[in-house]
Formats: sequence, structure tokens, C-alpha cells
Amino acid sequence: MSDLENQKPTTDSPAATGAPLIHDLNAEPESPAGQPDGNLVGNLLVGQSGGPTAVINASVAGVILEAGKHPGQIEEIYGGLNGIFGILHENLIDLNEEKRRSIEELKHTPGAALGTSRYKVQFKKNPEQAARDMDRLFEVFKAHNIRYFFYAGGNDSQDTNNKVHLEAIKRGYPLRCIGVPKTIDNDLPHTDHTPGFGSAAKYNATTVMEVAQDVASMATDDGSCCIIEVMGRAAGWLAAATVLAKRKPTDGPHIVLLPEIPLDEEKFLAKVKETVDQLGYCIVAAGEGVKNAEGNELGADKSRLDSFGHPVLSGAAEALGELVHGKLDLKTRTVKLGYAQRAAAHFASQQDVDEAVACGEAAVRAAVEGKSGLMVTIERKSDAPYEFATGLHPLGDIALVERTIPRDWISEDGWLPNKTFIKYAAPLVAGRLDLPTDDGLPKFAELSRVPVEKVLEPRSS
Amino acid sequence: MSDLENQKPTTDSPAATGAPLIHDLNAEPESPAGQPDGNLVGNLLVGQSGGPTAVINASVAGVILEAGKHPGQIEEIYGGLNGIFGILHENLIDLNEEKRRSIEELKHTPGAALGTSRYKVQFKKNPEQAARDMDRLFEVFKAHNIRYFFYAGGNDSQDTNNKVHLEAIKRGYPLRCIGVPKTIDNDLPHTDHTPGFGSAAKYNATTVMEVAQDVASMATDDGSCCIIEVMGRAAGWLAAATVLAKRKPTDGPHIVLLPEIPLDEEKFLAKVKETVDQLGYCIVAAGEGVKNAEGNELGADKSRLDSFGHPVLSGAAEALGELVHGKLDLKTRTVKLGYAQRAAAHFASQQDVDEAVACGEAAVRAAVEGKSGLMVTIERKSDAPYEFATGLHPLGDIALVERTIPRDWISEDGWLPNKTFIKYAAPLVAGRLDLPTDDGLPKFAELSRVPVEKVLEPRSS
Repeated sequence: MSDLENQKPTTDSPAATGAPLIHDLNAEPESPAGQPDGNLVGNLLVGQSGGPTAVINASVAGVILEAGKHPGQIEEIYGGLNGIFGILHENLIDLNEEKRRSIEELKHTPGAALGTSRYKVQFKKNPEQAARDMDRLFEVFKAHNIRYFFYAGGNDSQDTNNKVHLEAIKRGYPLRCIGVPKTIDNDLPHTDHTPGFGSAAKYNATTVMEVAQDVASMATDDGSCCIIEVMGRAAGWLAAATVLAKRKPTDGPHIVLLPEIPLDEEKFLAKVKETVDQLGYCIVAAGEGVKNAEGNELGADKSRLDSFGHPVLSGAAEALGELVHGKLDLKTRTVKLGYAQRAAAHFASQQDVDEAVACGEAAVRAAVEGKSGLMVTIERKSDAPYEFATGLHPLGDIALVERTIPRDWISEDGWLPNKTFIKYAAPLVAGRLDLPTDDGLPKFAELSRVPVEKVLEPRSS
Repeated sequence: MSDLENQKPTTDSPAATGAPLIHDLNAEPESPAGQPDGNLVGNLLVGQSGGPTAVINASVAGVILEAGKHPGQIEEIYGGLNGIFGILHENLIDLNEEKRRSIEELKHTPGAALGTSRYKVQFKKNPEQAARDMDRLFEVFKAHNIRYFFYAGGNDSQDTNNKVHLEAIKRGYPLRCIGVPKTIDNDLPHTDHTPGFGSAAKYNATTVMEVAQDVASMATDDGSCCIIEVMGRAAGWLAAATVLAKRKPTDGPHIVLLPEIPLDEEKFLAKVKETVDQLGYCIVAAGEGVKNAEGNELGADKSRLDSFGHPVLSGAAEALGELVHGKLDLKTRTVKLGYAQRAAAHFASQQDVDEAVACGEAAVRAAVEGKSGLMVTIERKSDAPYEFATGLHPLGDIALVERTIPRDWISEDGWLPNKTFIKYAAPLVAGRLDLPTDDGLPKFAELSRVPVEKVLEPRSS
């Protein structure tokens, strides 16, 4: 499926149609998007940001492999350690020093091989610090002649990327910034889906299928309920995708709880009871961000906040389990997959890996063609057989926007995603990564991380 | 590795040496164990009991496939639904009616395909009911001419199996009872390890490896701790086996908490802090039954009891997470694999599958040779290359005995299993099951479950 012919910007993408793009507004000396400008010669910097996925390294592999095909424009290929955070500290590594084998191994290595961070340039909350960050960032860019910048990440990261792009224009610093989509949450707009989603969906659906086999086989006397918590704070794409485990009407999951639909506890308990009465057991898949009727997250402990000020969620499944056990006196068990689901390279979707690589490659091609201020998107060309192409969309439209599941992709009673959703999600879990192993356990890439010599004073603020 | 030559009872097994066996004591008309008695002709009944594993169905496949090779002794091949519980209700299915393909598919199907239960014949707590159960059981056996009985299960189930064996002798009912070992907990004595353990260990170690990649790549500023809870109430074999994820001293897991070693909270917190100071993060693998200095399980909610009267454990990881967060003010995340780890056929160990099949086959061979009252064991013949053979051991020695990890297989400071443990566990996770899939998700066996016609009155009590 990684047909290179399909990965060019398509005719209806904004870049190709000449629709106005954010970075056209003040572009100087940047050339208008869509019009090739082959003259920019310099070094490439790729960084990773936010929560890792099983395939975020596959995108970096795509960037590196494609960059090697453009020696006339791209000279050195650098990686920024721990995203913007490390770049501000001038922590760059020379990716040309990595073994060819290691680059290939990135395609099946989970985590973020370059390191990631949740450091946020505080453009609104702390504009003085943000201004200092931008000064420092362009100091680093100039010091290392960075002319091509690729940032793999989700909403927040693409916002940062967009700010960097706009700043380059403002400063008259020729720079091509292209975003590489990444998030298991699948909540980026203007792309059919995001790399990382398919692999997490495949692992989660498989887990639901396997756990359902287990629980079903123990269904004798008093009935039982098993609640499987998956990631997704605002958007329920991953919870919804567990419906792929359901091949027959009686198969689990029997109930999928989405953050998009407030939980009616009485109706939920009645649905659990009805299912247990019928089958002897009930499998519930719940998104971590599932909310009660008042809009409060079931599993949120409001006393703990993460670095973004969000409450730390630790227990939608636990909260639901207590509810079911307490109200129905039913044996309940919980599974909380947590980080395991976004790191499960051992059962990654080959389709997802191919698309992640393609997104990295497309990003480099777009930049080499003179484009900037865009994120690579995935466009679905057909469902059966499934075909995709990469496209491009302005970063400004993507930053900080969260895409949730359309209501009409969910059954009327709200308990299960419907056929429209299944048609959408099914092709994304196809194909099984051929995982290299050592003594039965995965063999992951280990980068040698040869540092690029620092030339600046340490970051002072 | 499923070399049939290696699967005969070995010369030092009690059965082969002629050492006295429990069922010799009152054997009538049963022939002494170890002396072939080819005259018993009748039907076979196989049942599954207790918590399923990824390979308990592989053992049933082994039973069925081997049984087919002895048509002179074994006539019909029946499965008992939901173990003893279903057999008491005369819920038998005709396994000869299953498709040949389905039998093969059992080798990669998690859950218990025949159904399982935790129903316990209450020999001590309720001897009157137990006597009625035994009467009923032998009524069912006679009604269907069951002469070969195979029960796949752990300690409790092998106790039941032993009682059935002794009862048959007492009643003068010719019956061959052989136990098939099964438990992810690996806590059965007199066997090198148990089928089910290798696959769960492989999945858990892989998960720790992948989660460690994820957490390590986010290790920037303030440090973090991720706690992964695995099964194991009294015995820490599964928690210990996560050490296989550790290929370099800095790799996770950094701390393994075993139920065998009471947790010293202060030392634990100091160890977490030391690790975070060094690496920026810390990966902890914890057995669900990890206990504090007073011997109380950290995650036990004493107000909820399971059908055995054990407290229901819901949160060793949560309890540890709160401890680490509360005392060290460290970002903590938890993963609770729960049932997922015992059902993870998608990453099962081929070695484990082969051994599970071999145990089923060996059980039938032993019974056909005239033996009864024994459980199949796995004997390690060599470490490198790893070789095994099946053996046999009296059920009476196995029933209700729990094997824990020898203290000298754990480092002196108690934080990690040592090289002796690694040498023991490493071969058991080898080889990857070639899992058939449909559209990217596993394809499991679906038995048609053709019922054997009931001939008795319904069970009255």
C-alpha cells in the first residue's frame, strides 16, 4: 500500500489548488506555497513531540530516507532530542552517523527514538518567555544552518510548528516547516486519520477480542463484567475502534463508552444487566475520558494536574467497575492498558507503519518543493480495496483543534459505533508488522546518538 | 521442540520406577500404574478448569489429536462444558463432530473453548454436597461410558481430579484420570514449569519492554515512574519474568516487586528515587499480590471476596502509584494488564504452545498405557539448546500445593530476579506463534459444540 505514486499532494489539497495559505500572508523571502523553489540549501532538523506512538519512529525513518534523496538541497540530517525542549538546549544529533540498519529498525521501534517532551512554548500564558524561546530557537537554527524543519506531533505540537513557521517569515529567515501527523488519539482535523491510531486500534481491538474469549469461557453461574479502559480523553476514536473485535452480534464489546456521549448511569447499568442476563457476561470498552451527565470525567482525580493543567486521569475503568459491582453485585474485573497501547509495536498495523513512513517522506518532498506551514495529511482514496494518498493542509487550521467522532457514526442508543465507523476503521488495522526478535522478545533500534557539536552558549533562560 | 521421542515418561518418574502411587493403595479392579493394561475400552472426557490461559486449548487439541490414534481403546471423544460444573449437569459435547480445522485452530485460541468454571467440589467445607456431587459425577460417567478423564487446570483443579481418581478406585469403577497442567501463575510443584506461563511471560516482558521505550523517550525534566501490574497472587513468577525485558543494566524493569518478598516502603521509595535521579524515569513491575511488611496485600480491598473467600485484588499498581506520587511527588502512571495477559494468544510463545499440545498428548498416552492418578509434568532436559520431555507425577502431591520462587533466584537486595532465574525463564518465551488473522485481527476457533444427548434426569441437588 505504500505506493509512492499515491503520495503526492492531490489536486484538491489547498496547496495544489492555490487556495490562500497562512504563510502566504507575510511571506518574505519565502516563495508562495505550491511553487517549487529549489534554491534553499541547508541542513534538516527533525523532532518528535508529545506522547509517543508505535509508529512515530517510522515517520522519522521516512524523513531520513527521503532526505537522503535530495543531497542538492539537504546537506546534514539532524535530530533534535526531546523536541523543542532539547533543540532550545542545542541538543542535536547527527542522523547520518546512524547505521543504515538502525534507520530501518526505527520502523518497528516504539517510543520516540529522538526523545520527546511536553514542553510548550507559552505563547499566550508567558509571552516574554515565548519570545526568548523563539530568539533562542532561531539562534540554534542559524548556528546549524537549519533550513528544513519537521515536527512529528499532535495538535499542540503542530501549533508550535505553525508558530515557528510564522516566526521564520517574520524574521525573514528562509525555513521550510512541515508537520508530520502523529497521535494514537486520531483527533487531528483535516486528515482522514493519523499515524499511530491504526496500530493502537489493532492492539486494543485484539485485546478486547482475547479478553472476551477469556471472560466468555468463564461465564457460568452469577455472571461477570469486564471493563477495559483505553486512551482518549476528549475523543473516543480508540474506544470506538474496539468495536472491530465484534464479528457476531453476541461478541464483545457489548458496550463502548465514549467521551463524546455523557454516561447515563442508570441506562448503562440496565444495559450491563441485560447483557449479562442474556450471555452470562458483559464486555465494556471505555475511553479514559468518559464523562458523567454533569460533564465530569468519571476517572478524574481533580487534585492532581498534569503540566498542561489537565486533571490526571487514573481510573475510568476502576470507577465504572465500582459502579457495576456496587449497584449490580456483579463480579467485575478491569484492564487498564495505559501506555502499553501506544507502544505495542509487537502487534502494530503494517498499514499504519507504511502510512507513517509515507507521511515522513511526503513531508520532505513538500519542503524540497518549496512548501512550508503545512502538515501532511492522509487522504482516503477508496475503502475497498483501501487506498490512501498523502495531502497537505495549513498548520494553522490544525493547531489546537480536536476532532471527535461524528454522532451519526454511533448507534442511536449510543452504546456502539455503527457500520459507518466500522467501514472507516477496519482498513487501518490491516497487515501485521514483521517484527524482528531476539530470543523471542522484540528487537528495537538503538540509536548511537552522535551529538552535533554545540557552538552556542548554554541556554540562559 | 515437540519431539515425540522426548515425551514419554522418563525413567525417574514415579510411574516408571514403580514407586508406590496413591491409587495403588485400593486399586480394584484398576491395574497398577506403569503396567500397561490395554483392555479398558470406552469414551474419553476432557474438561478445563480455573482461569484460562493462552494455551489451555492447545492442550485440549493435544488430547483430541492423540486420542484419535487409539481407536481400539478410546471410542467417543467428549468435552465437558465448564469443567466439573457442566459435567454434573451432563453438559457434554461430541468433539468428533468438530471440524478438523477447528481442532487445529484451538492451538492459537485463548480462553477455554470448552468453557471453564471455578466450581469446587466442597470435600471439606460441605462433605454432604461433595458426596452428592461424586454420586452424580459417576452417574454421568456411567451413563456415557466415560473411561478416560482428562482435566486441565491448576492446583485446585488437580485436587478435584485426584479426588475423582480416588473415588473411582473406591467405587470399583475402571477409570483413567490424568491431569493436564495449566496455569499462567507457574505455581504447580513437581513440574519445571506450566503451560500458559511462557506465553503470559512473553507478553508481559514485551509489554514492559515497549512501555519502557515509551517512558524513557519522555524522560526530560521532572522524572516519572510507571508501574505495571501483572498477575500472581502468592507466587511472583510472572512479575519476575518481566526481567527478560532487561537487556542492559539501564533497561527496565528497574524494580520487580514479588509477593514472596514483603515490601519495605522506605527502601522501595529510595530505590525509585535513585533510579529516577540516574535515568530520569523508573519502570516498576509488580505482582498483584505484593504485600507490605505486615503481610497485607497492597491492592486488596478486604471488603470484597471471591467465591473462594479470597479478597478481590484490584489495585497493587494503583496503591503503589499513589505511594510514589504521594511521597516522591513524581509523575506516575499505571498499567494493569489483568485478563489481557492470560489471553494474549496474539503474541503467544511457540515453545509454550508446543509444550501445551505435548502435555495433552502425553496425558492420553499415559492413560492408554494404563496409568491413572497422575499429572503430566514438564521436565527440562537441557538449557542450551533448551530441550524438554514430559513426565508424570502423582496428583496427590500436586493438589493444593503452591510453588514460589526460590529466594536464591532473586538478587540479594530483593529488587530483581538474578541470572539463575533468567536462565530458567528465557527459553520459555521463545518462538512466535504464527497467528491466522482476518482483516488484521486474530481468527480464533469456533467450536460447533454439538451436544451429547442427555440420558439422565436433570441434576437435582
